[in-house]
Amino acid sequence: MPHADHQSGPATNAQSAFTVAIRELRTVVGDAHVKDRPDELDRAAKATIPDPRRPLAVVYPGSAEEAAQVVKIANRFGVPLWPVSRGKNWGYGSATPAREGTVVVVLERLNRILKVDEELAYALIEPGVSYRQLRAHLEEHHPTLWCDSTDGSPEGSVIGNALDRGLGVTHYADHFGTLCGLEVVLPNGEIVRTGGGPRDCKTWNTHKWGVGPYLEGLFSQSSFGVVVKAGVWLIPKPEAFCSFTFDLARPDDLPRLVDALRELALRGVLQSGFHLINDIVALSVLWQYPAHLLDRYSRLPAETVASLQRDLGIAPWTLGGGIQGTKGQVRAVKTALRASLSPLGRLMFVSDRTIAAVDRLRRAMRWPGAGKPISAFVRTATGKSPEMLDAGPHIHSVLKGRPSDYFVRHAYFKSRLPRPEIADPDRDDVGLIWFAPIAPMTGRSVAEALALCRPLFERFEFDFYAALLMQNARSIIVLMSIFYLKDSPEQTARAGRLYDELSLATKSAGYQQYRVGVRGMPGLADSAPAFVGLVRALKSGIDPRSILAPGKYGV
Amino acid sequence: MPHADHQSGPATNAQSAFTVAIRELRTVVGDAHVKDRPDELDRAAKATIPDPRRPLAVVYPGSAEEAAQVVKIANRFGVPLWPVSRGKNWGYGSATPAREGTVVVVLERLNRILKVDEELAYALIEPGVSYRQLRAHLEEHHPTLWCDSTDGSPEGSVIGNALDRGLGVTHYADHFGTLCGLEVVLPNGEIVRTGGGPRDCKTWNTHKWGVGPYLEGLFSQSSFGVVVKAGVWLIPKPEAFCSFTFDLARPDDLPRLVDALRELALRGVLQSGFHLINDIVALSVLWQYPAHLLDRYSRLPAETVASLQRDLGIAPWTLGGGIQGTKGQVRAVKTALRASLSPLGRLMFVSDRTIAAVDRLRRAMRWPGAGKPISAFVRTATGKSPEMLDAGPHIHSVLKGRPSDYFVRHAYFKSRLPRPEIADPDRDDVGLIWFAPIAPMTGRSVAEALALCRPLFERFEFDFYAALLMQNARSIIVLMSIFYLKDSPEQTARAGRLYDELSLATKSAGYQQYRVGVRGMPGLADSAPAFVGLVRALKSGIDPRSILAPGKYGV
Repeated sequence: MPHADHQSGPATNAQSAFTVAIRELRTVVGDAHVKDRPDELDRAAKATIPDPRRPLAVVYPGSAEEAAQVVKIANRFGVPLWPVSRGKNWGYGSATPAREGTVVVVLERLNRILKVDEELAYALIEPGVSYRQLRAHLEEHHPTLWCDSTDGSPEGSVIGNALDRGLGVTHYADHFGTLCGLEVVLPNGEIVRTGGGPRDCKTWNTHKWGVGPYLEGLFSQSSFGVVVKAGVWLIPKPEAFCSFTFDLARPDDLPRLVDALRELALRGVLQSGFHLINDIVALSVLWQYPAHLLDRYSRLPAETVASLQRDLGIAPWTLGGGIQGTKGQVRAVKTALRASLSPLGRLMFVSDRTIAAVDRLRRAMRWPGAGKPISAFVRTATGKSPEMLDAGPHIHSVLKGRPSDYFVRHAYFKSRLPRPEIADPDRDDVGLIWFAPIAPMTGRSVAEALALCRPLFERFEFDFYAALLMQNARSIIVLMSIFYLKDSPEQTARAGRLYDELSLATKSAGYQQYRVGVRGMPGLADSAPAFVGLVRALKSGIDPRSILAPGKYGV
Repeated sequence: MPHADHQSGPATNAQSAFTVAIRELRTVVGDAHVKDRPDELDRAAKATIPDPRRPLAVVYPGSAEEAAQVVKIANRFGVPLWPVSRGKNWGYGSATPAREGTVVVVLERLNRILKVDEELAYALIEPGVSYRQLRAHLEEHHPTLWCDSTDGSPEGSVIGNALDRGLGVTHYADHFGTLCGLEVVLPNGEIVRTGGGPRDCKTWNTHKWGVGPYLEGLFSQSSFGVVVKAGVWLIPKPEAFCSFTFDLARPDDLPRLVDALRELALRGVLQSGFHLINDIVALSVLWQYPAHLLDRYSRLPAETVASLQRDLGIAPWTLGGGIQGTKGQVRAVKTALRASLSPLGRLMFVSDRTIAAVDRLRRAMRWPGAGKPISAFVRTATGKSPEMLDAGPHIHSVLKGRPSDYFVRHAYFKSRLPRPEIADPDRDDVGLIWFAPIAPMTGRSVAEALALCRPLFERFEFDFYAALLMQNARSIIVLMSIFYLKDSPEQTARAGRLYDELSLATKSAGYQQYRVGVRGMPGLADSAPAFVGLVRALKSGIDPRSILAPGKYGV
């Protein structure tokens, strides 16, 4: 059902208005780019969360101008739109709208890299550009530049992730922070550039705040416009780079480790968005539930986890991050990390040379009879299993911002399917919900947040997957994932209930989420009524009929 | 005249409504805190720009709640307000509103430092808190923390400067960038916190983007609310610190220098907001127009500048910045700076030890007969004059973020008054206008911007004061100041015309300003009509009667 229009009459009127709207949309974007057959809508309704919604139709505009036309038509007919860049917002809702009766607008056909400025290190791109595409373009045409990436799917949209305020892995990990200069289709179909500058403003993509109020924040985690172009800051390939991994020796030292990391980050020693993962995260990358356990357990028994930990050489908490700069800077950072972290566990620096040596070792292990002794040697020397050794080159590479298909395999932890080369958990009926509160970066707060959530995972019988991601030097995301069997209605319902309980428990303790899935969006209005009221009032000034993304982030 | 209220009748009604409004304001903030006597308004109308406006009254609320009451009363009676933090926005308009018929609201009585978190390195403060006050508080109670400061007046508001997107001198120079968590009085008098978090949200002052749309940008360079509390990130005192100065040998190498600085900034070598000043800037700090030149020249003859340059040891362009980090990091940065800058001029590193030695030298110069030989030695060894030597400790100290009364003396370059200990150019009838376009940080763009502006200064016969300030690694502010004799109506009018011509010339070439004085605000709507239209539409959603700061940034 289309969104009821206050001015229009009964449902039949609305329905026929919708039919006319779809016809007009077809005229603008072409028949092939409007999907509303039942089987197409079934496919569009697939998402890893428990309760995806079926859109009324899916529209794929081919240009910014077409996107503007789509918005104008929607406005004329009172048809609400749910714009997504590439729709890979896995675990938060993928392309699922927050409300029934919405037309999804997918921007994947707007996939041009319009400009790369080598001198000023930025690109101007469209929302259909993926991490894989941007990185490949840079490697081919501008090898002096890197882009950051998430450790999620290389198929994700660079702009979409930044607007959702996603996180990467390098010192450009704060993706929204590296967005500069937006072109936006407003709810009335007008196209506007942010920044307040004159025509052909020279600093549109270099000066983040522009002149006058800084409006770009309005278009992130929100429903104020459809971003059709954005400047993205790129990383000049550093003179020197090395990555590091760190295995925490005693789980009880986690708060001490977090405090040490905060000090290092505040002092500018640690600049990259480090990831600190627990045993289940490592396990989900290295291992998959075998069929005989899948129907037996929704949570692995402690003994199973312990024995896998031992076999695979997984620490209770493992840290990874990158170091870049001049040779002298990298050296200085290594010294400071060593002094600060070595008392708490095993710190290893990994250079391109280390990776070459690991590659040789992995090849040597394939020789008849060589596997066992080499593996034993590696274990003694590094504490790592052959599986961990396999992961090494992928970790090193992703920490340079190179997108990787390796880590996103973790989504298939509880899938009945083997891991595909290129992940598509929506298509493959994977059950996965992200829950991501953010805490002040103190050992105390992180311990508190974990202590709130871990027992709930136990009570609801799901594996406790937790990764701590630096958002900035003062804040750390406590990213949790609920893996469940999508073909089990009972597990699916239980996973949803766990999510709701986690939301409630963390909210009551004063934690906000850094990013919210569609299931959690209605709760935001209760949690911060004055703030959401302000957002609504602002939105009423430019979208009085609430055409764009109704329900997004509680608005 | 009060702002005409659409619902009300002729002027007399508005006038009597205004009288009632003032009476109610007195009830809320107390008689002593509403100024509307003619002499008080004369004083309030003083500003360094050519055309300050006389407000209808000046109100000084004593708390956030009183500020909210003031806004409610203004709304009820249709009286427009112009809120300022401490009103020290010298050169851009001080406390002068953009339109006639406005009541100025000064927040200087809201001057509490509500919280300092040593662990997470932030403070929660009110808008009346000055740089001097915050730094003194930290030095006394939290000596492990520094705050950034501008090199302008220590009396400026920390929050006010950040909301105007002012710039400092350390690696926390982007003041708006280090603001996190606002409490705002909306145009309807409601008090709202940004960030979208639940009650007592733990990351209000640590997670900049919050959850849902990031709204804090709306309250900078704008008229969307009155900020009554803000979180400000502080700097953990670094393990090692040193400052550097660099004298460019050949003025023609300026583009090469800018390109080198961009590379250093992009690569994370230069992290502080460096300042690169021309000869007139240095001169205005070290020297003052003597009386006999003041009426003779509005621009110093080239020979006079050349001979002063020689005498005072001023380079055509001088760079200054700070380096902080671990000892190893500071060492690495020094190495990289040396390699990059030494070919272009004279680079000097200054440590706390250097400053102690300079102090001893300055004392020694006061011994009878010692001045001349020491001065000659200093000139040979460093190329610096005794006056430059005097400036050294002030430069080193301000680069640590310590506010200083030393540099703001430059405002009195063309004043008939001697420089006071604590500058107050509004009170002292100093004529001074800032004009501040921003350019991509390339030698080419900076050269172009200077080539556009310098001839205009020559044509209008004003000294060409230009400072290049790093805003971020990709953008550089070309800050110019027009010094004029306020008691000369001819010079005052000419200064205004130069400002207008500068605005026009830079806008036509595609440069935006990083910050605009009230004189330049009306031009913004012509320059970016779609953007300003969007801002107006948003504002109409929360301030339909345009009570807050009408005309600010063209809205």
